[in-house]
Amino acid sequence: MPNKSIPSRKDFVEFYPITTRWMDNDVFGHVNNVVYYSYYDTIINRFIAEQGAYDLKSSELAAFIVHSQCFYHNSVAYPEDLEGGFVVNKIGNSSVEYGVAVFRKDEEQAAAHGTMTHVFVTKADGKPTPIPDLLRDAFKQASNNKC
Amino acid sequence: MPNKSIPSRKDFVEFYPITTRWMDNDVFGHVNNVVYYSYYDTIINRFIAEQGAYDLKSSELAAFIVHSQCFYHNSVAYPEDLEGGFVVNKIGNSSVEYGVAVFRKDEEQAAAHGTMTHVFVTKADGKPTPIPDLLRDAFKQASNNKC
Amino acid sequence: MPNKSIPSRKDFVEFYPITTRWMDNDVFGHVNNVVYYSYYDTIINRFIAEQGAYDLKSSELAAFIVHSQCFYHNSVAYPEDLEGGFVVNKIGNSSVEYGVAVFRKDEEQAAAHGTMTHVFVTKADGKPTPIPDLLRDAFKQASNNKC
Amino acid sequence: MPNKSIPSRKDFVEFYPITTRWMDNDVFGHVNNVVYYSYYDTIINRFIAEQGAYDLKSSELAAFIVHSQCFYHNSVAYPEDLEGGFVVNKIGNSSVEYGVAVFRKDEEQAAAHGTMTHVFVTKADGKPTPIPDLLRDAFKQASNNKC
Repeated sequence: MPNKSIPSRKDFVEFYPITTRWMDNDVFGHVNNVVYYSYYDTIINRFIAEQGAYDLKSSELAAFIVHSQCFYHNSVAYPEDLEGGFVVNKIGNSSVEYGVAVFRKDEEQAAAHGTMTHVFVTKADGKPTPIPDLLRDAFKQASNNKC
Repeated sequence: MPNKSIPSRKDFVEFYPITTRWMDNDVFGHVNNVVYYSYYDTIINRFIAEQGAYDLKSSELAAFIVHSQCFYHNSVAYPEDLEGGFVVNKIGNSSVEYGVAVFRKDEEQAAAHGTMTHVFVTKADGKPTPIPDLLRDAFKQASNNKC
Repeated sequence: MPNKSIPSRKDFVEFYPITTRWMDNDVFGHVNNVVYYSYYDTIINRFIAEQGAYDLKSSELAAFIVHSQCFYHNSVAYPEDLEGGFVVNKIGNSSVEYGVAVFRKDEEQAAAHGTMTHVFVTKADGKPTPIPDLLRDAFKQASNNKC
Repeated sequence: MPNKSIPSRKDFVEFYPITTRWMDNDVFGHVNNVVYYSYYDTIINRFIAEQGAYDLKSSELAAFIVHSQCFYHNSVAYPEDLEGGFVVNKIGNSSVEYGVAVFRKDEEQAAAHGTMTHVFVTKADGKPTPIPDLLRDAFKQASNNKC
């Protein structure tokens, strides 16, 4: 059973600004449940891009999501500005589980949080390959020390 | 720990066509991991709409997603036509867990599958309210007999 | 000034099914204005893909949209099933203007229509290149005889 | 024929930050043509929301887009941070045409620009209604003096 307790800012190590969009809101006037994953996807790839270790177009590696999940605690809505929280939960040989969250400005507790699991593969054959050292080191630095 | 085994068509009770879109594909040429949730969201609300029990605009009820997750088994890509599978996993007092999946045409095993959990609330106060009888009956009919 | 008159089915030569998605609807309960362009994009690339003349991943060519526009006549909404209309308006040396539209089932007049203009370029230098003959022939066949 | 010349920052009166998202990028590694409209939509509704003159949920008014268009000059890509430009081109009785653009940070010329036309209607009957005075005044202030 996944842990449903609401995390707070201290549980994350990196934060990124997220601007909401008009079309993020659904018929109920809140950000649609699907859209949170686009925030998470963006947070994770931004962390990876900032390490300079993984060029999305030219690299021989690709990283595929094999599992993702989200717990929704409080609704958010356009035109709010949000912040995305990032942490590394678990580091395996070729896979890594990220912890991600969406925070309202000035709120300590996450409006939503989740996990996403990346598996690194070689583009040529699609087979899992060890996480490159540069990224592995960055993931360790971004770990919440539970791995 | 969630069950990672790949479900097949026999594990679902309703199927809906899904047309992929050009922009569903990401830089790797596959449907982006976020987009699967828009398929799932669509499958679930279609089932609900077809029961005639829940009018999205005029109803005093709303249904909020409190948890969602997806296991990605095989990539799919625009311009493929897909089919969405729907089943009810668990029925509570005011909440219901759906099982959802995406199938390639002519494939028995799911390309991806997941769960989404709805909580029914009254719009006026946002508090959980029992699932309306019409919907509860429909959910029972769409159950995989495990609830 | 662009032509604002509402086109009907006879003005288009190819039709493709479009399944709407729950999150296509905005806070007013109608498909958001942005989403129509994802329908148009999908219609155009589907026509191109069906010609077998343009492999999106391996080709040395790419096609970039340089202009797009949409006239909104009547709202549509999830869970409606829609049909997309396609026609070629103008064929240039390296560019082509498509006419596109969204139809409700059983309606003769378009709910929305627009144009999109593709310029074909070589990926290596991003410079315009003549439309490949196979595609040019297909575009002529799909023309409304006004070019 | 619409004006294709590339506007620069001095042609706009308000600017808003836009954070790109991983899934904004298409298979060519650039922000998909559709996504620009979600930026435009967001810019316009943010301007309106900031006037405090138009509450999206409780108002008796709604504003529908009747035409939109975009000219694409240079590609942008996630993870770039962008800025959206806003100006009012034309004010009618119940309609208003906005000029919108997307700028790369530190670039004077727009990467893309377009127009969107809103018609204000009463929700009850969907009929055009005069632009509320508060908004009309705000639109005048945000005009580029060409109306």
